[in-house]
Amino acid sequence: MRHFDLEMNDLKKKLVDMATLVQEMIKFSVDEIVKRDLNLSKEVFNRERETNLTEIIIDDTCLKLIALNQPVGTDLRFITSAMRINSDLERMGDEAVNICEIGEELLKYPDLKPLIDIPKMANAVTVMVKDSIEAFNLSDADLADTVLSKDDEVDELKRIIIKDLLEFMTNTSDQTTLIRAIDLMFIAKSLERLGDHATNIAEDVIFMVHGKDIRHLKSI
Amino acid sequence: MRHFDLEMNDLKKKLVDMATLVQEMIKFSVDEIVKRDLNLSKEVFNRERETNLTEIIIDDTCLKLIALNQPVGTDLRFITSAMRINSDLERMGDEAVNICEIGEELLKYPDLKPLIDIPKMANAVTVMVKDSIEAFNLSDADLADTVLSKDDEVDELKRIIIKDLLEFMTNTSDQTTLIRAIDLMFIAKSLERLGDHATNIAEDVIFMVHGKDIRHLKSI
Repeated sequence: MRHFDLEMNDLKKKLVDMATLVQEMIKFSVDEIVKRDLNLSKEVFNRERETNLTEIIIDDTCLKLIALNQPVGTDLRFITSAMRINSDLERMGDEAVNICEIGEELLKYPDLKPLIDIPKMANAVTVMVKDSIEAFNLSDADLADTVLSKDDEVDELKRIIIKDLLEFMTNTSDQTTLIRAIDLMFIAKSLERLGDHATNIAEDVIFMVHGKDIRHLKSI
Repeated sequence: MRHFDLEMNDLKKKLVDMATLVQEMIKFSVDEIVKRDLNLSKEVFNRERETNLTEIIIDDTCLKLIALNQPVGTDLRFITSAMRINSDLERMGDEAVNICEIGEELLKYPDLKPLIDIPKMANAVTVMVKDSIEAFNLSDADLADTVLSKDDEVDELKRIIIKDLLEFMTNTSDQTTLIRAIDLMFIAKSLERLGDHATNIAEDVIFMVHGKDIRHLKSI
Protein backbone atom coordinates (compact mmCIF):
# COMPACT_ATOMS: atom_id res chain seq x y z
CA MET A 1 0.00 0.00 0.00
CA ARG A 2 1.29 3.47 -0.87
CA HIS A 3 2.32 5.76 1.97
CA PHE A 4 -0.45 8.17 0.95
CA ASP A 5 -3.08 5.42 1.15
CA LEU A 6 -1.86 4.46 4.59
CA GLU A 7 -2.22 8.05 5.69
CA MET A 8 -5.72 8.26 4.23
CA ASN A 9 -6.68 5.11 6.14
CA ASP A 10 -5.24 6.61 9.29
CA LEU A 11 -7.33 9.78 8.75
CA LYS A 12 -10.45 7.67 8.33
CA LYS A 13 -9.65 5.76 11.51
CA LYS A 14 -9.14 9.01 13.45
CA LEU A 15 -12.57 10.25 12.35
CA VAL A 16 -14.29 6.97 13.20
CA ASP A 17 -12.64 7.03 16.64
CA MET A 18 -13.82 10.60 17.16
CA ALA A 19 -17.32 9.56 16.10
CA THR A 20 -17.22 6.78 18.71
CA LEU A 21 -16.37 9.32 21.38
CA VAL A 22 -19.21 11.57 20.25
CA GLN A 23 -21.69 8.67 20.22
CA GLU A 24 -20.66 7.84 23.79
CA MET A 25 -21.17 11.49 24.76
CA ILE A 26 -24.70 11.43 23.32
CA LYS A 27 -25.49 8.17 25.09
CA PHE A 28 -24.17 9.37 28.47
CA SER A 29 -25.92 12.73 28.22
CA VAL A 30 -29.31 11.15 27.48
CA ASP A 31 -28.76 8.44 30.13
CA GLU A 32 -28.02 11.18 32.64
CA ILE A 33 -31.54 12.55 32.10
CA VAL A 34 -33.35 9.23 31.81
CA LYS A 35 -31.57 7.40 34.64
CA ARG A 36 -31.30 10.57 36.73
CA ASP A 37 -27.59 9.95 37.26
CA LEU A 38 -25.60 13.19 37.49
CA ASN A 39 -22.34 11.23 37.69
CA LEU A 40 -22.58 10.66 33.95
CA SER A 41 -21.81 14.35 33.36
CA LYS A 42 -18.14 13.79 33.97
CA GLU A 43 -18.07 11.02 31.34
CA VAL A 44 -19.35 13.61 28.87
CA PHE A 45 -17.04 16.44 29.95
CA ASN A 46 -13.95 14.19 29.86
CA ARG A 47 -14.77 13.16 26.32
CA GLU A 48 -15.38 16.77 25.34
CA ARG A 49 -11.76 17.63 26.09
CA GLU A 50 -10.68 14.66 24.01
CA THR A 51 -12.88 15.56 21.03
CA ASN A 52 -11.69 19.18 21.11
CA LEU A 53 -8.10 18.01 20.90
CA THR A 54 -8.91 15.41 18.23
CA GLU A 55 -10.69 18.01 16.09
CA ILE A 56 -7.50 20.07 15.88
CA ILE A 57 -5.35 16.99 15.15
CA ILE A 58 -7.68 15.85 12.34
CA ASP A 59 -7.75 19.30 10.73
CA ASP A 60 -4.00 19.46 10.89
CA THR A 61 -3.72 15.97 9.36
CA CYS A 62 -6.01 17.03 6.50
CA LEU A 63 -4.03 20.19 5.74
CA LYS A 64 -0.76 18.24 5.69
CA LEU A 65 -2.26 15.52 3.47
CA ILE A 66 -3.29 18.17 0.95
CA ALA A 67 -0.07 20.18 1.13
CA LEU A 68 2.28 17.20 0.84
CA ASN A 69 0.37 15.03 -1.63
CA GLN A 70 -1.57 17.49 -3.76
CA PRO A 71 -4.51 15.15 -4.18
CA VAL A 72 -7.25 15.71 -6.77
CA GLY A 73 -10.64 14.16 -7.55
CA THR A 74 -11.93 11.54 -5.12
CA ASP A 75 -9.00 11.85 -2.75
CA LEU A 76 -9.37 15.62 -2.45
CA ARG A 77 -13.12 15.27 -1.94
CA PHE A 78 -12.47 12.67 0.75
CA ILE A 79 -10.14 15.00 2.65
CA THR A 80 -12.34 18.11 2.45
CA SER A 81 -15.37 16.00 3.43
CA ALA A 82 -13.37 14.71 6.38
CA MET A 83 -12.73 18.31 7.46
CA ARG A 84 -16.43 19.08 7.36
CA ILE A 85 -17.43 15.86 9.14
CA ASN A 86 -14.79 16.61 11.78
CA SER A 87 -16.43 19.97 12.43
CA ASP A 88 -19.91 18.43 12.64
CA LEU A 89 -18.70 15.80 15.09
CA GLU A 90 -17.16 18.40 17.35
CA ARG A 91 -20.40 20.39 17.39
CA MET A 92 -22.34 17.22 18.14
CA GLY A 93 -20.15 16.82 21.20
CA ASP A 94 -21.09 20.39 22.16
CA GLU A 95 -24.79 19.46 21.95
CA ALA A 96 -24.20 16.49 24.26
CA VAL A 97 -22.52 18.87 26.72
CA ASN A 98 -25.51 21.16 26.34
CA ILE A 99 -27.91 18.31 27.19
CA CYS A 100 -25.81 17.52 30.27
CA GLU A 101 -25.85 21.11 31.44
CA ILE A 102 -29.63 21.33 31.09
CA GLY A 103 -29.80 17.96 32.90
CA GLU A 104 -27.95 19.42 35.86
CA GLU A 105 -30.81 21.90 36.33
CA LEU A 106 -33.55 19.39 35.49
CA LEU A 107 -32.39 16.80 38.00
CA LYS A 108 -32.76 19.25 40.88
CA TYR A 109 -36.47 18.41 40.71
CA PRO A 110 -38.42 15.14 40.60
CA ASP A 111 -39.43 13.76 37.19
CA LEU A 112 -42.11 15.88 35.55
CA LYS A 113 -43.46 12.81 33.81
CA PRO A 114 -42.16 9.38 32.80
CA LEU A 115 -39.80 10.10 29.89
CA ILE A 116 -40.95 8.15 26.86
CA ASP A 117 -40.69 10.32 23.77
CA ILE A 118 -37.32 11.88 24.68
CA PRO A 119 -35.59 8.44 24.83
CA LYS A 120 -37.47 7.48 21.63
CA MET A 121 -36.22 10.62 19.90
CA ALA A 122 -32.71 10.01 21.29
CA ASN A 123 -32.79 6.45 19.88
CA ALA A 124 -33.83 7.68 16.44
CA VAL A 125 -31.06 10.29 16.49
CA THR A 126 -28.51 7.74 17.69
CA VAL A 127 -29.34 5.48 14.74
CA MET A 128 -28.90 8.44 12.37
CA VAL A 129 -25.51 9.27 13.89
CA LYS A 130 -24.34 5.63 13.85
CA ASP A 131 -25.46 5.12 10.24
CA SER A 132 -23.95 8.38 8.99
CA ILE A 133 -20.54 7.39 10.39
CA GLU A 134 -20.87 3.83 9.12
CA ALA A 135 -21.73 5.28 5.70
CA PHE A 136 -18.58 7.39 5.86
CA ASN A 137 -16.45 4.45 6.98
CA LEU A 138 -17.73 2.19 4.17
CA SER A 139 -18.17 4.97 1.56
CA ASP A 140 -21.76 3.72 1.35
CA ALA A 141 -23.97 6.35 -0.29
CA ASP A 142 -27.09 4.15 -0.01
CA LEU A 143 -26.73 3.95 3.75
CA ALA A 144 -26.21 7.72 3.80
CA ASP A 145 -29.51 8.05 1.92
CA THR A 146 -31.36 6.19 4.68
CA VAL A 147 -30.04 8.75 7.19
CA LEU A 148 -31.58 11.60 5.20
CA SER A 149 -34.94 9.81 5.15
CA LYS A 150 -35.00 9.58 8.97
CA ASP A 151 -34.73 13.31 9.62
CA ASP A 152 -38.48 13.92 9.21
CA GLU A 153 -39.25 11.24 11.82
CA VAL A 154 -37.00 13.02 14.33
CA ASP A 155 -38.59 16.40 13.57
CA GLU A 156 -42.05 14.88 14.06
CA LEU A 157 -41.03 13.42 17.43
CA LYS A 158 -39.81 16.84 18.49
CA ARG A 159 -43.17 18.35 17.51
CA ILE A 160 -45.01 15.75 19.61
CA ILE A 161 -42.74 16.30 22.61
CA ILE A 162 -43.27 20.07 22.55
CA LYS A 163 -47.04 19.68 22.16
CA ASP A 164 -47.18 17.30 25.16
CA LEU A 165 -45.06 19.59 27.31
CA LEU A 166 -47.32 22.51 26.44
CA GLU A 167 -50.22 20.55 27.95
CA PHE A 168 -48.28 20.18 31.20
CA MET A 169 -47.50 23.87 31.22
CA THR A 170 -51.11 24.86 30.64
CA ASN A 171 -52.41 23.02 33.67
CA THR A 172 -50.05 24.32 36.29
CA SER A 173 -49.31 27.30 38.43
CA ASP A 174 -46.13 25.67 39.70
CA GLN A 175 -42.95 27.36 38.50
CA THR A 176 -40.82 24.22 38.84
CA THR A 177 -43.19 22.44 36.44
CA LEU A 178 -42.58 25.21 33.93
CA ILE A 179 -38.82 25.08 34.41
CA ARG A 180 -38.75 21.30 33.91
CA ALA A 181 -40.95 21.54 30.82
CA ILE A 182 -38.72 24.26 29.32
CA ASP A 183 -35.62 22.18 30.07
CA LEU A 184 -37.14 19.18 28.29
CA MET A 185 -38.05 21.37 25.30
CA PHE A 186 -34.47 22.57 24.97
CA ILE A 187 -33.24 18.96 25.26
CA ALA A 188 -35.58 18.02 22.40
CA LYS A 189 -34.15 20.96 20.44
CA SER A 190 -30.60 19.67 21.06
CA LEU A 191 -31.60 16.19 19.89
CA GLU A 192 -33.10 17.69 16.73
CA ARG A 193 -29.81 19.50 16.15
CA LEU A 194 -27.90 16.22 16.55
CA GLY A 195 -30.11 14.77 13.82
CA ASP A 196 -29.29 17.78 11.63
CA HIS A 197 -25.57 17.17 12.07
CA ALA A 198 -26.00 13.48 11.14
CA THR A 199 -27.85 14.68 8.03
CA ASN A 200 -24.94 16.99 7.17
CA ILE A 201 -22.51 14.07 7.51
CA ALA A 202 -24.70 11.86 5.31
CA GLU A 203 -24.79 14.58 2.63
CA ASP A 204 -21.01 14.86 2.80
CA VAL A 205 -20.69 11.08 2.31
CA ILE A 206 -22.91 11.21 -0.79
CA PHE A 207 -20.83 14.09 -2.16
CA MET A 208 -17.64 12.21 -1.34
CA VAL A 209 -18.80 9.04 -3.10
CA HIS A 210 -20.59 10.48 -6.12
CA GLY A 211 -18.91 13.86 -6.44
CA LYS A 212 -22.40 15.26 -6.62
CA ASP A 213 -23.59 17.95 -4.27
CA ILE A 214 -27.05 16.95 -3.10
CA ARG A 215 -27.42 19.70 -0.54
CA HIS A 216 -30.47 21.88 -1.06
CA LEU A 217 -31.68 19.94 -4.11
CA LYS A 218 -35.27 20.59 -3.08
CA SER A 219 -34.85 24.29 -2.61
CA ILE A 220 -32.89 25.41 -5.69
CA MET B 1 -1.58 40.10 -10.47
CA ARG B 2 -1.21 36.35 -10.97
CA HIS B 3 -4.20 34.39 -12.23
CA PHE B 4 -4.24 32.45 -8.94
CA ASP B 5 -4.37 35.68 -6.91
CA LEU B 6 -7.25 36.94 -9.02
CA GLU B 7 -9.12 33.72 -8.33
CA MET B 8 -8.42 33.98 -4.60
CA ASN B 9 -9.78 37.54 -4.62
CA ASP B 10 -12.84 36.33 -6.46
CA LEU B 11 -13.37 33.60 -3.82
CA LYS B 12 -13.13 36.20 -1.08
CA LYS B 13 -15.65 38.41 -2.87
CA LYS B 14 -18.06 35.49 -3.26
CA LEU B 15 -17.92 34.80 0.48
CA VAL B 16 -18.38 38.46 1.41
CA ASP B 17 -21.40 38.65 -0.95
CA MET B 18 -22.84 35.52 0.66
CA ALA B 19 -22.29 37.06 4.09
CA THR B 20 -24.19 40.17 2.95
CA LEU B 21 -27.14 37.97 1.95
CA VAL B 22 -27.05 36.20 5.31
CA GLN B 23 -26.89 39.50 7.21
CA GLU B 24 -29.95 40.67 5.29
CA MET B 25 -31.72 37.42 6.17
CA ILE B 26 -31.00 37.95 9.86
CA LYS B 27 -32.19 41.57 9.69
CA PHE B 28 -35.42 40.69 7.85
CA SER B 29 -36.21 37.76 10.14
CA VAL B 30 -35.80 39.85 13.31
CA ASP B 31 -37.70 42.79 11.74
CA GLU B 32 -40.53 40.42 10.92
CA ILE B 33 -40.97 39.73 14.65
CA VAL B 34 -40.34 43.24 15.90
CA LYS B 35 -42.36 45.14 13.26
CA ARG B 36 -44.96 42.36 13.05
CA ASP B 37 -44.63 42.28 9.25
CA LEU B 38 -45.13 38.78 7.82
CA ASN B 39 -44.30 40.05 4.32
CA LEU B 40 -40.65 40.04 5.30
CA SER B 41 -40.70 36.22 5.31
CA LYS B 42 -40.47 36.11 1.56
CA GLU B 43 -37.37 38.34 1.61
CA VAL B 44 -35.76 35.69 3.82
CA PHE B 45 -36.95 32.67 1.84
CA ASN B 46 -35.81 34.19 -1.48
CA ARG B 47 -32.36 34.77 -0.08
CA GLU B 48 -32.26 31.23 1.35
CA ARG B 49 -32.46 29.79 -2.17
CA GLU B 50 -29.66 32.10 -3.22
CA THR B 51 -27.40 31.20 -0.28
CA ASN B 52 -27.99 27.48 -0.87
CA LEU B 53 -26.85 27.83 -4.44
CA THR B 54 -23.92 30.06 -3.49
CA GLU B 55 -22.74 27.56 -0.89
CA ILE B 56 -22.36 24.90 -3.57
CA ILE B 57 -20.61 27.29 -5.96
CA ILE B 58 -18.13 28.41 -3.29
CA ASP B 59 -17.30 24.82 -2.29
CA ASP B 60 -16.77 23.95 -5.92
CA THR B 61 -14.54 26.99 -6.41
CA CYS B 62 -12.45 25.97 -3.38
CA LEU B 63 -12.00 22.39 -4.60
CA LYS B 64 -10.92 23.60 -8.05
CA LEU B 65 -8.52 26.15 -6.56
CA ILE B 66 -6.83 23.39 -4.55
CA ALA B 67 -6.81 20.81 -7.36
CA LEU B 68 -5.48 23.15 -10.04
CA ASN B 69 -3.02 25.24 -8.03
CA GLN B 70 -1.87 22.91 -5.27
CA PRO B 71 -1.53 25.70 -2.74
CA VAL B 72 0.33 25.29 0.57
CA GLY B 73 0.76 27.35 3.74
CA THR B 74 -1.28 30.54 4.01
CA ASP B 75 -3.07 30.04 0.69
CA LEU B 76 -4.21 26.53 1.60
CA ARG B 77 -5.33 27.71 5.05
CA PHE B 78 -7.26 30.53 3.40
CA ILE B 79 -9.12 28.13 1.12
CA THR B 80 -9.98 25.55 3.77
CA SER B 81 -11.07 28.35 6.13
CA ALA B 82 -13.25 29.69 3.32
CA MET B 83 -14.92 26.27 3.06
CA ARG B 84 -15.66 26.26 6.77
CA ILE B 85 -16.91 29.86 6.80
CA ASN B 86 -19.10 29.03 3.80
CA SER B 87 -20.72 26.23 5.76
CA ASP B 88 -21.27 28.47 8.82
CA LEU B 89 -22.86 31.16 6.66
CA GLU B 90 -25.28 28.72 5.11
CA ARG B 91 -26.33 27.45 8.54
CA MET B 92 -26.78 31.04 9.71
CA GLY B 93 -29.22 31.48 6.85
CA ASP B 94 -31.05 28.39 8.13
CA GLU B 95 -31.35 30.00 11.57
CA ALA B 96 -32.86 33.14 10.00
CA VAL B 97 -35.39 30.90 8.22
CA ASN B 98 -36.06 29.24 11.56
CA ILE B 99 -36.76 32.62 13.21
CA CYS B 100 -39.14 33.47 10.36
CA GLU B 101 -41.01 30.21 10.74
CA ILE B 102 -41.43 30.71 14.47
CA GLY B 103 -42.51 34.28 13.67
CA GLU B 104 -45.31 32.99 11.48
CA GLU B 105 -46.82 31.28 14.52
CA LEU B 106 -45.99 34.10 16.93
CA LEU B 107 -47.66 36.79 14.83
CA LYS B 108 -51.00 34.98 14.95
CA TYR B 109 -51.37 36.52 18.41
CA PRO B 110 -50.94 40.06 19.76
CA ASP B 111 -47.58 41.01 21.27
CA LEU B 112 -46.96 39.23 24.57
CA LYS B 113 -44.91 42.19 25.75
CA PRO B 114 -42.99 45.05 24.17
CA LEU B 115 -39.92 43.41 22.68
CA ILE B 116 -36.83 45.04 24.14
CA ASP B 117 -34.25 42.38 24.94
CA ILE B 118 -34.80 40.32 21.77
CA PRO B 119 -33.91 43.32 19.49
CA LYS B 120 -31.01 44.09 21.85
CA MET B 121 -29.74 40.53 21.56
CA ALA B 122 -30.29 40.64 17.77
CA ASN B 123 -28.22 43.85 17.58
CA ALA B 124 -25.37 42.32 19.57
CA VAL B 125 -25.42 39.23 17.33
CA THR B 126 -25.56 41.37 14.18
CA VAL B 127 -22.43 43.24 15.27
CA MET B 128 -20.68 39.89 15.87
CA VAL B 129 -21.66 38.65 12.41
CA LYS B 130 -20.64 41.90 10.70
CA ASP B 131 -17.30 42.04 12.50
CA SER B 132 -16.48 38.37 11.87
CA ILE B 133 -16.97 38.87 8.12
CA GLU B 134 -15.09 42.17 8.12
CA ALA B 135 -12.26 40.39 9.97
CA PHE B 136 -12.25 37.72 7.26
CA ASN B 137 -12.31 40.31 4.47
CA LEU B 138 -9.41 42.29 5.95
CA SER B 139 -7.56 39.28 7.42
CA ASP B 140 -7.78 41.18 10.70
CA ALA B 141 -7.16 38.82 13.64
CA ASP B 142 -7.57 41.62 16.20
CA LEU B 143 -11.08 42.37 14.98
CA ALA B 144 -11.80 38.62 15.10
CA ASP B 145 -10.67 38.68 18.74
CA THR B 146 -13.31 41.32 19.58
CA VAL B 147 -15.98 38.98 18.19
CA LEU B 148 -14.94 36.22 20.59
CA SER B 149 -15.18 38.61 23.52
CA LYS B 150 -18.80 39.48 22.69
CA ASP B 151 -20.14 35.93 22.89
CA ASP B 152 -20.59 36.05 26.68
CA GLU B 153 -22.69 39.21 26.39
CA VAL B 154 -25.03 37.45 23.95
CA ASP B 155 -25.31 34.40 26.22
CA GLU B 156 -26.12 36.66 29.18
CA LEU B 157 -28.87 38.41 27.19
CA LYS B 158 -30.36 35.03 26.36
CA ARG B 159 -30.35 34.09 30.05
CA ILE B 160 -32.19 37.33 30.92
CA ILE B 161 -34.76 36.82 28.14
CA ILE B 162 -35.57 33.29 29.30
CA LYS B 163 -35.83 34.38 32.94
CA ASP B 164 -38.25 37.20 32.00
CA LEU B 165 -40.38 34.90 29.87
CA LEU B 166 -40.57 32.41 32.71
CA GLU B 167 -42.18 35.13 34.84
CA PHE B 168 -44.85 35.63 32.18
CA MET B 169 -45.49 31.92 32.03
CA THR B 170 -45.79 31.61 35.80
CA ASN B 171 -48.57 34.15 36.07
CA THR B 172 -50.92 32.86 33.41
CA SER B 173 -53.45 30.17 32.73
CA ASP B 174 -53.71 31.32 29.11
CA GLN B 175 -52.30 28.84 26.60
CA THR B 176 -51.57 31.49 23.96
CA THR B 177 -49.36 33.28 26.47
CA LEU B 178 -47.42 30.08 26.92
CA ILE B 179 -47.14 29.53 23.17
CA ARG B 180 -45.86 33.05 22.61
CA ALA B 181 -43.36 32.77 25.45
CA ILE B 182 -42.05 29.45 24.10
CA ASP B 183 -41.76 30.94 20.61
CA LEU B 184 -39.73 33.85 21.96
CA MET B 185 -37.49 31.43 23.88
CA PHE B 186 -36.73 29.50 20.70
CA ILE B 187 -36.03 32.76 18.87
CA ALA B 188 -33.54 33.68 21.61
CA LYS B 189 -32.01 30.22 21.15
CA SER B 190 -31.65 30.84 17.40
CA LEU B 191 -30.00 34.21 18.05
CA GLU B 192 -27.57 32.55 20.45
CA ARG B 193 -26.75 30.04 17.72
CA LEU B 194 -26.09 32.87 15.25
CA GLY B 195 -23.60 34.28 17.74
CA ASP B 196 -21.95 30.84 17.95
CA HIS B 197 -21.55 30.75 14.18
CA ALA B 198 -19.98 34.23 14.19
CA THR B 199 -17.59 32.94 16.87
CA ASN B 200 -16.68 29.99 14.65
CA ILE B 201 -15.95 32.35 11.76
CA ALA B 202 -13.79 34.58 13.98
CA GLU B 203 -11.80 31.53 15.12
CA ASP B 204 -11.30 30.53 11.49
CA VAL B 205 -10.00 34.01 10.69
CA ILE B 206 -7.47 33.84 13.53
CA PHE B 207 -6.34 30.41 12.33
CA MET B 208 -6.14 31.71 8.76
CA VAL B 209 -4.02 34.72 9.75
CA HIS B 210 -1.74 33.19 12.38
CA GLY B 211 -1.82 29.53 11.39
CA LYS B 212 -2.58 28.87 15.03
CA ASP B 213 -5.62 26.91 16.08
CA ILE B 214 -7.19 28.77 18.98
CA ARG B 215 -10.28 26.61 19.22
CA HIS B 216 -10.82 25.06 22.63
CA LEU B 217 -7.76 26.71 24.14
CA LYS B 218 -9.53 26.96 27.48
CA SER B 219 -10.63 23.34 27.57
CA ILE B 220 -7.54 21.39 26.57
